[in-house]
Amino acid sequence: MDESKYVKVNKRDNVAIALNDIPKGTQLAPGVIARHDIPQAHKITLEPIAENGAVIRYGVTLGYVKRDTPAGSWINEDSLVLPVPPALDEMEWGCDIATDLPEPVASTWEGYPAADDGFAGTRNILAIHTTVQCVTGVVNVAVDRIRRELLPSYPHVDDVVPINHAYGCGVAINAPEAKVPIRALRNLLRHPNFGGQTMIVGLGCEKLTVEMLLADQPELNCADNVIILQEHRGFEAMIEAILSMARQKLERLERRRRESLPISKLLVGLQCGGSDAFSGVSANPSAGYAADMLVAAGGTVLFSEVTEVRDGVYLLARRCVSKSVADRLAEEMRWYDTYLELGGVDRSANPTPGNKKGGLSNIVEKAMGSIAKSGTSPIVEVLSPAERPREHGLIYAATPASDIVCGPCQLASGIGVQVFMTGRGTPYGLAAAPVLKLCSRNEMKEQWFDIIDINAGPVATGEKTIAEMGTMVFRKIIEVASGRDQPYSERYGLHNDLCIFNPAPIT
Amino acid sequence: MDESKYVKVNKRDNVAIALNDIPKGTQLAPGVIARHDIPQAHKITLEPIAENGAVIRYGVTLGYVKRDTPAGSWINEDSLVLPVPPALDEMEWGCDIATDLPEPVASTWEGYPAADDGFAGTRNILAIHTTVQCVTGVVNVAVDRIRRELLPSYPHVDDVVPINHAYGCGVAINAPEAKVPIRALRNLLRHPNFGGQTMIVGLGCEKLTVEMLLADQPELNCADNVIILQEHRGFEAMIEAILSMARQKLERLERRRRESLPISKLLVGLQCGGSDAFSGVSANPSAGYAADMLVAAGGTVLFSEVTEVRDGVYLLARRCVSKSVADRLAEEMRWYDTYLELGGVDRSANPTPGNKKGGLSNIVEKAMGSIAKSGTSPIVEVLSPAERPREHGLIYAATPASDIVCGPCQLASGIGVQVFMTGRGTPYGLAAAPVLKLCSRNEMKEQWFDIIDINAGPVATGEKTIAEMGTMVFRKIIEVASGRDQPYSERYGLHNDLCIFNPAPIT
Ligand SMILES: [Ca+2]
Ligand SMILES: [Ca+2]
Ligand SMILES: [Ca+2]
Ligand SMILES: [Ca+2]
Ligand SMILES: [Ca+2]
Repeated sequence: MDESKYVKVNKRDNVAIALNDIPKGTQLAPGVIARHDIPQAHKITLEPIAENGAVIRYGVTLGYVKRDTPAGSWINEDSLVLPVPPALDEMEWGCDIATDLPEPVASTWEGYPAADDGFAGTRNILAIHTTVQCVTGVVNVAVDRIRRELLPSYPHVDDVVPINHAYGCGVAINAPEAKVPIRALRNLLRHPNFGGQTMIVGLGCEKLTVEMLLADQPELNCADNVIILQEHRGFEAMIEAILSMARQKLERLERRRRESLPISKLLVGLQCGGSDAFSGVSANPSAGYAADMLVAAGGTVLFSEVTEVRDGVYLLARRCVSKSVADRLAEEMRWYDTYLELGGVDRSANPTPGNKKGGLSNIVEKAMGSIAKSGTSPIVEVLSPAERPREHGLIYAATPASDIVCGPCQLASGIGVQVFMTGRGTPYGLAAAPVLKLCSRNEMKEQWFDIIDINAGPVATGEKTIAEMGTMVFRKIIEVASGRDQPYSERYGLHNDLCIFNPAPIT
Repeated sequence: MDESKYVKVNKRDNVAIALNDIPKGTQLAPGVIARHDIPQAHKITLEPIAENGAVIRYGVTLGYVKRDTPAGSWINEDSLVLPVPPALDEMEWGCDIATDLPEPVASTWEGYPAADDGFAGTRNILAIHTTVQCVTGVVNVAVDRIRRELLPSYPHVDDVVPINHAYGCGVAINAPEAKVPIRALRNLLRHPNFGGQTMIVGLGCEKLTVEMLLADQPELNCADNVIILQEHRGFEAMIEAILSMARQKLERLERRRRESLPISKLLVGLQCGGSDAFSGVSANPSAGYAADMLVAAGGTVLFSEVTEVRDGVYLLARRCVSKSVADRLAEEMRWYDTYLELGGVDRSANPTPGNKKGGLSNIVEKAMGSIAKSGTSPIVEVLSPAERPREHGLIYAATPASDIVCGPCQLASGIGVQVFMTGRGTPYGLAAAPVLKLCSRNEMKEQWFDIIDINAGPVATGEKTIAEMGTMVFRKIIEVASGRDQPYSERYGLHNDLCIFNPAPIT
C-alpha cells in the first residue's frame, strides 16, 4: 500500500484522505485503483461499499452511500446521505476520562494579574464599551483622536478598542433570548485585558441602559466611568468628555506590568474556520495536543461551535466529569436544535462551499475534525454563549460555529489568546485579544506565508508527529500570551467587527 | 383655556401634551387643574375618563385607563392597557386618496445621473463591497491606505466606504429568511452613489459566494471587479490588489459630474429614532409635509418601521392606491407579527425607556406619531426589507424600526438622502448617503446645537406652521441631495456600522 499518497485516521475507516491530487488510474493498494481524479484532501474508498452502506472516517459513520461504490471511488457531498443526529437523552457520561495528558514543557507565563484574582490579561488595552450601536459614530471619531493624540504618551498601553456592537436598542430587550447578547456585553466589561478600567459611552434613551449593563457591578455606574451623550451640550463637548475620561483611564493602565504567573491564570480559546479535510488530521489534533498540555499545566481551555460537535456529542458526553456537566451539554445542544428549527434549518446548514471543496462532505465529517481540537482532556464545565468559566480545565463553551460570532462569545468568556485552525484560510482577528493561526496543509502556508503563524501541514505529510506539532503550538501560545510574540493578525491590525450573538428579534 | 401650556392634536382627543413641565396645581382650563407634576411632552387628561375608558390622542385610542381618572391627571405607560392590534384581514383600502398635495417650491436638483436611468446619486463614493465579514480586517487596512494615499488625488470623489457586514458565512444560507440579507447586499451593489463602479472583496470559501451575490448581474463577475483573498499570495499582495483595483475605479468615478435633474430622479428615505411625544406633533408632520411636496414634484419617498405602523395600519391601507398594494401591506405586517412571535415577543417590545421618558406611553402612541412622517400622499407600493422601488411616489418599505437596521435597508433600496426625526437625540449616520436630522423640540436643538440640522420645535410652540417647517425641510433635502449642503453627521464623519437585517439563524 502506498501510504505516502493518503491518510487513514482510524483502523476501522473504509475511506482515506488524498494527501495530494490523485490522478485517475493511480494504484493505491492491491485492488484499489483511483476510479476518478481525486482532489487533494478528498476522500477515496479503500474497499467496496454496498448501497446504503456506511462510509467510515475517524471510526464513525459519516453517512451512507446512495449506490454501490467500488474501491477507489471519490466520495463527496453528493455521494452521501446524512445520518440522523445522535440522541441527546440518556447519553453515557464519564466513561472516557483521560488521565495520561502530555507533560507540560512550561509551567509559567508572563501576564497582567487580574484584580479579582481570576484569569490574567495577555494585553493592556483601553476598552471603550458602548450600550448601543447609536453611539458608534461618535465613539469612532473619539477613538481616532485618542490613537493619534493620547496613545503615544502611554507606551505601556497596547491599544484603544471600541466595543461597538449592533445591539442595545431597536431590539426586543425582554425577549427570552435577549439574555445572550446582554450577558456578552456585561462579561466583555470584565475582560482581563482591560485592566479593570471601566469606560462606558451610552446614548441616554436606549433599551440597554447603563443600569442594565452594570446590573452585576452597580458600583461602577458613576461619572468617573460613564458618559451619556444626550447629557452633553454638542458634539465637541462629547468628544472632549470621551478624551478626558480616556486620559484618566490611560494613566492607570500605564502602570500595569506583566508578572510571572502560573498557567492556571491563562484562559485560551480554540476555534476553527475555513476548514478542510486535513483540519481533522493535522491542525485540530495538534491544537488538541496543546490543549491537553495546557490542561495538564493547570490551564483552562475553551472549545466551542455547537453545530460542529452536535454529531459527535456522545463522544464528548463520555468525557464529561459528572452527570450535571453532561446534562448541561445536552441542554445546550437542545437549545440550538430548537433555534435552528425555528429558522427552518438544521445542523446540515453548517458546511460551507469552501469546506466541501476542501473535502469535507458533510457536517458529520466536519464535526469529527472539529472535535479533534479538544484533545483528550476531561470536560469539567459547559458554558452558555458568552458565560464566564467557574472551573479550570477543558471547558465546552456552546457558541455558534460562525467564526465572527464564536470569537466575541469566547472573548466575553475572558480568553486571553485564541488559537484559530484553518484549512482554506481566513484573515480573521479580534481587536481585544491576539489570535494565533494554525493551518492544516503546507500549500496553505505557502500561499499565506505572512498570515499563517504555524503550519501543521507536516503532520499530514508524516514529517512531524502530532506531539511535536502540539508542543510547538503550546510554546507559541505561551509566547503570544506573554507578549513576547505577536501573531500576524495582531501585527497588521486585522480585526473583525464584534458580532455579538443575538438570537432574539429586532423590533 | 391656556393653550400656551399644551398641544391637543385632534378635536376628539381627551388628552393633551404638556409643552413644558407643568407643576401640580396649574390651572389649564376651567375645571382642569394639574393633579400631578406633568413632565414636558407627557400627557394630561382634559376630561375625566372612567375605568376601562379610552385615552384618545390623534383621534385614536391609545389604550384604556386601568382606573377612574379625573381631569388633570398624568397619563403614562403605567396608566394604560394596550388595545389589541388592528386586524389585517379585509382592511378598507383606497378610500383616503389625497389629491391636495402642497405646491413644490423647486422642481429640479443637482445629482449624478444613473447609467440605468433610475434614481440618481447624491454623492460620489467608491464602495468596496464584501461577500463576508471574514475579509473586514484586510479591507479596513486597505481602506485606510486608500484614504491616505489615493483619495487626495481624486478631488471629485467624496469618500471610500467599505460595505462591511456581519453576514456571508456561519449562517444558514438556505434558510427561508436568508433572502433578506442577501437581497440587501445585492441591492447595495446597485446604489446610485457608487456610480456603477463595482468592486467586491471575497474570501473564497464563504457561503455567500460572489456568484450568489452577483446572481442578477453575472456579467460583473470578472477580475476587473472581484478580488478573492484566498487566491492571493500573502498579505501584501492582497493589499496591493485592492489598492490597484481601487485606483482603476477612482479614475472612472473622478469623471462623474452633477447635472440638473428632475425631482423624479430623487429617492428620499424617512425614519425616526429616539422619539418623544412631540415627534408626532412637530418633526414628523413637518417631514410628512416635505414628503408630500416631494411626491407632488414627482419624487419618491420611502417610509418604514413595521412595529411603528402596525397599530395604524388601517389608516395606511385607506391610502393604498390598489387592493394589491394594501394586500402587500398586510402581508408584510403578518410576516413581522410571526417573526416577533417566534422570538417570544410582540409589537409592545418596541418603545424604549427614552420614548417613555419622552412621554410616549406605548406603541400605539408611538405609531401614531411615527406615521405622521408619511404625510398624506397615496401609497403606491409596498416593499419587503431592502427591495428596490419600481414605482414613483410615496412607498412603504417594511423594515425593522431599529434605526441602525432600517438605515441599511433603505440604503439598499437606493435612497440618496435620509431624513431622520428625533426627540431625544441620536448621532446616527450612514457612510454611503447623507442623513439630515430634524428634532422635535427647541430644548433638543439647544442641547445638540451642532448635531441637529433642523429644529422643528417652533411647530410645537406655535411659532411656525407645519407648512412653513415642511417647506424648510423640503429645501434642505434639495440642498443636501445636490451637494450644496452637508448635514452635521456627514461633516463629522459620524457613521454607524452597516447592520444588515438577518432574520435567519446563525450556524
Ligand atoms: Ca469550525
Ligand atoms: Ca468557527
Ligand atoms: Ca421610529
Ligand atoms: Ca427608527
Ligand atoms: Ca461621509
